[in-house]
Amino acid sequence: MAGNSFGDIFRITTFGESHGSAIGVIIDGCPSNISIDENFIQSELDKRKPGQSKITTQRKESDTVQIHSGVFEGKSTGTPIAMFIPNEDQRSKDYSHILDKFRPSHADFTYQSKYGIRDYRGGGRSSARETAARVAAGAIAKLFLKQEGIEVFAHVSGVGSIESPNIDPTDLTDLLALREENIVRCADPATANEMISFIDDIRKNGDTVGGRISTVIRNVPVGLGEPVFDKLHADLGKAMLSINAVHGFEYGSGFEGSKMKGSEHNDIFIKDSTDKVTTQTNFSGGIQGGISNGMDITFRTAFKPVATIMRDQNTLNLEGEETTISGKGRHDPCVVPRAVIIVEAMAALVIADHLLKHRSYTHAR
Amino acid sequence: MAGNSFGDIFRITTFGESHGSAIGVIIDGCPSNISIDENFIQSELDKRKPGQSKITTQRKESDTVQIHSGVFEGKSTGTPIAMFIPNEDQRSKDYSHILDKFRPSHADFTYQSKYGIRDYRGGGRSSARETAARVAAGAIAKLFLKQEGIEVFAHVSGVGSIESPNIDPTDLTDLLALREENIVRCADPATANEMISFIDDIRKNGDTVGGRISTVIRNVPVGLGEPVFDKLHADLGKAMLSINAVHGFEYGSGFEGSKMKGSEHNDIFIKDSTDKVTTQTNFSGGIQGGISNGMDITFRTAFKPVATIMRDQNTLNLEGEETTISGKGRHDPCVVPRAVIIVEAMAALVIADHLLKHRSYTHAR
Amino acid sequence: MAGNSFGDIFRITTFGESHGSAIGVIIDGCPSNISIDENFIQSELDKRKPGQSKITTQRKESDTVQIHSGVFEGKSTGTPIAMFIPNEDQRSKDYSHILDKFRPSHADFTYQSKYGIRDYRGGGRSSARETAARVAAGAIAKLFLKQEGIEVFAHVSGVGSIESPNIDPTDLTDLLALREENIVRCADPATANEMISFIDDIRKNGDTVGGRISTVIRNVPVGLGEPVFDKLHADLGKAMLSINAVHGFEYGSGFEGSKMKGSEHNDIFIKDSTDKVTTQTNFSGGIQGGISNGMDITFRTAFKPVATIMRDQNTLNLEGEETTISGKGRHDPCVVPRAVIIVEAMAALVIADHLLKHRSYTHAR
Amino acid sequence: MAGNSFGDIFRITTFGESHGSAIGVIIDGCPSNISIDENFIQSELDKRKPGQSKITTQRKESDTVQIHSGVFEGKSTGTPIAMFIPNEDQRSKDYSHILDKFRPSHADFTYQSKYGIRDYRGGGRSSARETAARVAAGAIAKLFLKQEGIEVFAHVSGVGSIESPNIDPTDLTDLLALREENIVRCADPATANEMISFIDDIRKNGDTVGGRISTVIRNVPVGLGEPVFDKLHADLGKAMLSINAVHGFEYGSGFEGSKMKGSEHNDIFIKDSTDKVTTQTNFSGGIQGGISNGMDITFRTAFKPVATIMRDQNTLNLEGEETTISGKGRHDPCVVPRAVIIVEAMAALVIADHLLKHRSYTHAR
Repeated sequence: MAGNSFGDIFRITTFGESHGSAIGVIIDGCPSNISIDENFIQSELDKRKPGQSKITTQRKESDTVQIHSGVFEGKSTGTPIAMFIPNEDQRSKDYSHILDKFRPSHADFTYQSKYGIRDYRGGGRSSARETAARVAAGAIAKLFLKQEGIEVFAHVSGVGSIESPNIDPTDLTDLLALREENIVRCADPATANEMISFIDDIRKNGDTVGGRISTVIRNVPVGLGEPVFDKLHADLGKAMLSINAVHGFEYGSGFEGSKMKGSEHNDIFIKDSTDKVTTQTNFSGGIQGGISNGMDITFRTAFKPVATIMRDQNTLNLEGEETTISGKGRHDPCVVPRAVIIVEAMAALVIADHLLKHRSYTHAR
Repeated sequence: MAGNSFGDIFRITTFGESHGSAIGVIIDGCPSNISIDENFIQSELDKRKPGQSKITTQRKESDTVQIHSGVFEGKSTGTPIAMFIPNEDQRSKDYSHILDKFRPSHADFTYQSKYGIRDYRGGGRSSARETAARVAAGAIAKLFLKQEGIEVFAHVSGVGSIESPNIDPTDLTDLLALREENIVRCADPATANEMISFIDDIRKNGDTVGGRISTVIRNVPVGLGEPVFDKLHADLGKAMLSINAVHGFEYGSGFEGSKMKGSEHNDIFIKDSTDKVTTQTNFSGGIQGGISNGMDITFRTAFKPVATIMRDQNTLNLEGEETTISGKGRHDPCVVPRAVIIVEAMAALVIADHLLKHRSYTHAR
Repeated sequence: MAGNSFGDIFRITTFGESHGSAIGVIIDGCPSNISIDENFIQSELDKRKPGQSKITTQRKESDTVQIHSGVFEGKSTGTPIAMFIPNEDQRSKDYSHILDKFRPSHADFTYQSKYGIRDYRGGGRSSARETAARVAAGAIAKLFLKQEGIEVFAHVSGVGSIESPNIDPTDLTDLLALREENIVRCADPATANEMISFIDDIRKNGDTVGGRISTVIRNVPVGLGEPVFDKLHADLGKAMLSINAVHGFEYGSGFEGSKMKGSEHNDIFIKDSTDKVTTQTNFSGGIQGGISNGMDITFRTAFKPVATIMRDQNTLNLEGEETTISGKGRHDPCVVPRAVIIVEAMAALVIADHLLKHRSYTHAR
Repeated sequence: MAGNSFGDIFRITTFGESHGSAIGVIIDGCPSNISIDENFIQSELDKRKPGQSKITTQRKESDTVQIHSGVFEGKSTGTPIAMFIPNEDQRSKDYSHILDKFRPSHADFTYQSKYGIRDYRGGGRSSARETAARVAAGAIAKLFLKQEGIEVFAHVSGVGSIESPNIDPTDLTDLLALREENIVRCADPATANEMISFIDDIRKNGDTVGGRISTVIRNVPVGLGEPVFDKLHADLGKAMLSINAVHGFEYGSGFEGSKMKGSEHNDIFIKDSTDKVTTQTNFSGGIQGGISNGMDITFRTAFKPVATIMRDQNTLNLEGEETTISGKGRHDPCVVPRAVIIVEAMAALVIADHLLKHRSYTHAR
């Protein structure tokens, strides 16, 4: 209801403000006897944490995860898994520049209006810092999916007007290696270099820019997703749109597909070499009637430019008086390099939840 | 869980197969004392029903709504509102051509795999006929929103590669009149004519085409939407993606916004002539941090081309043998003219639900 | 939220007022491929319907069920099952005696205060007529449980101060036969006769009386129920307390158990002849830590006397003025004979829901 | 779904095992601008903590609460409130006596069977230690209810066969003072003394005993509770039955009421001195048709005797072999003195949740 939980069976609830004592997450509904590798969870958090490179914020947070429950002798017990990430970077810095001002295209005005109160320090709950908790939960979802042979891969496919050529998802392990070789997390090295220098220029100008992330989910069994309202792509879409700064979602053929003809767009069913039912093309993005059909699930997510820029902007204060404001401190010129891991985490959570739904009631046994 | 319900407080549950005895919906959580105008509900259904024009399916269904509960002496009572729409067009026609074949880019294969059984007649539950129930429920949501002064307007802004120029949403009543003057439901008359002749050609070739619908929601109070997972745009996105054939959703600046710089994209807060806080631009689409900011809420939805074409296509049958299939009977060459009202219905349901959430617990009184 | 739905996975939503056109229920989440025997559903409804005997209301309703969706060629399809029960007994009788008066211990005052409007005809939504929809849904839950070998049995164990001796639940089929041999539905024939004549006297005096129902659930697998808040007995308790007129619930040793010592109350684990783990006694009522342990699940439910009596009572009207009111028409002198089937239905719904939860995520596979 | 959350709008999720690093709770949906008095929360926890007297366990836990989010400058912000209670008493004691044995009437067998793994240390998640998190959350619910003028009071009304006379709930503040004057938390001093010496004898014999707790909720507005499934007393019942060791729940006239006649049991509506609608008697326990009627809400809860006794008992081990087990360490001879505060906490959570529901959608404004 208050919207800090996600998922029905594999359900997470996050908490924490960016400058409180800690943020964290509770997972309720994780199956028992999953091997919980803390190092893997930490390595996922390290991919999201600030201060990774010259094109991300220079703020320093180790984002060290603590597991407080639900894991016994390295295995999930089926009880709630509580994970904590203490906030280290709470230096009592001066917030007077935002305390009573509404930052343009931030959530200051809407939070203040909705709640009549807000923790203005670093954006409080509206800070993207909250997504660290999602990454920790997503890491556990990935450990569960791994046992099922399901892989989730995302990379930066666009920054500003720069577009990456389509990548061949045949081997996601190779793509992951390619992606991690560069700081912008694009699996196409040439495009990556272009993006990096572009973002660096933007940063030097005190400006920011948006971007796009493409995702592939591999080896999803046929039958995941509920018809009508909880279609698999509808839940993936909501998951992506719940990530800070996301303004658009499309799956399979997406917006371009809406310009096509049926005779071009239909995916013809054939049998592959192993006699498995598959389709000649995949404009459906691996989902038909809201249900996975066994093909790769593919979707794309659009992120707006970061709202905090290092320039003076006009705005209003709490009293509604005109004033100016300028970004201070350490911010990302472009969010997509760090958002890749958030996108993967949310995708993993959606698939884990639908996998458990699928087990529960689809077939009478 | 099984995904036939939508909304948390203003909650609907739909039922029914396209060739069963009836389809319908139960609304649970509609406030009491709302004036329920049956004629309005029927007029909304009439905008979605088949057989409206040469560019929609020629199938005939009167889609007559029956209200069985929750309304007493013309007012909602706060108890569940059950609405029924009997299926008239159940002529026992020959389904042998699809009984054991998987129609390309339809839900036959995924339903069969998920449930091990399916009502193949006319697509059963996966038929867009289910959306008539959403339109009936959406009509009641609109009657509730009307009491709150909130307006929802959608129109066809794209068909194939044809794009409508941006429309001026100053007067939604005028736009509604313009939209209803043409059979494609585009508020720009010149573009409408272009779209109509294009769809007509497509139809004559036994083919189909996709399109796009743009929506504006006016007079939404500040503060609707829950931060984090249930952001207002995330719920709108899920609502749109749950509509048959939708492959993409974007709000405010959308995908194009992801190519912009922060200095271009930020919406500067100003005061309007009435001293109300507003923004100079609206790239945020009326939503900041997942919460409505009082500006127009704007989003766009992409529909893939209809999968049923009047041409032979290769496919597989239940036994996995290669075969061919061809569309029969009466289908839409393009769904967007009828989908406009479905988009409005789902948007109204999301706003009604968040309006009730907002009342419940945002502020201590 | 508005509380007309029950269950998480096997989920029902009921609708309808006692004197509207129909009442009914939608089941969402019923597994596919369950054999749906309409005759069984009707036979269950016949056990609840009015006019069965001299000790129930003489009102006549055939309570004929119509299935409108979710069943294809005799099997559940996994889509929503919508069932309708038209209201026949809608004679436009005179309601002036209750239109503006609050019947003592009825819901007139609370509905009027909560909603600011109410359908006063026959109690509207607060009428026990709503439970017919639960019985129809419960019948389908029973058909599902039957496939799993699970049996649910309830009978009248108390009327007024009359208590039935404990029955031996070894053979529930025999008990069911014994129960259906008498009109009060007590499986102990001698006690049944005593109860019947007592209720008949009460009725002749224009008065009513309360009673108690005892339930046994047999062959429930070990592991159903979620620890902490959704304990199996907590959900059974809520299910029972949601039935009109229920004022109390106890399971296993119940209130008497709270007077015992641990050394008397503990159920010692032993192995039965088949080497299956069982317990020497069953004060736990088949549930330990909120989870079924494989023993018989046993609980008891207390029903208050029917509020409508055939005598003058003082009360207030809508204007808050003092007035008198007297029961009219045809009412039950005691609800338990008809409530037995409602108790079984709600119990079956709880077990079905928890069985599906158990499948979904308890064990990593 | 996995059952570690409670409430729909004012929603809590608890986590933690008795011998893990910490237990805690997240509250999602607490209204903003509630004054959060940490001292009050701690004082509530102090009433539940172990080691309070000779008739409770001698185990020592300070149960110190830490608030990590959702509170800013002493006020709730509307974002999730995360509270932590570190476990201090984790001395690596010898668990070999329970590691592979099923303690009679404990959850060892059912957890092991359900999850295939369990944290056996001190009962893990099934330990009543989990209820400390409920008390912390309940304290915040009480702070919210206090602003609305609503009071919740519970006391020990029965231990073994000892019954307290009915207490006069006219002044709950006086009763609270009386209750806190004795270690068994019975508001009737004479009965309290009797109970204390009885429990002390039981303890000396290495045995345990059950008891009963009675609750009154005062100043609940008319209209709380949803008809049909989410009746106010059904949610109170589920809340009580979710507390460890509870085997029974009754409200208003309860089980005794089921022996009465309608002419005795009906609550006649009258006007009080202030012209407010009230009832002459309150057999309805303040709830009619599942909705509060403004009178005192009254209910009673039955607790079974503690399962851990200081005597040898026969049981089975993981291999299903016969063995014996005896309680070790420090356990409560009777839970009710500490459970009083848990009962109040759960009651406060139910009322807070229904109060927010009531605000949201009952009336069109």
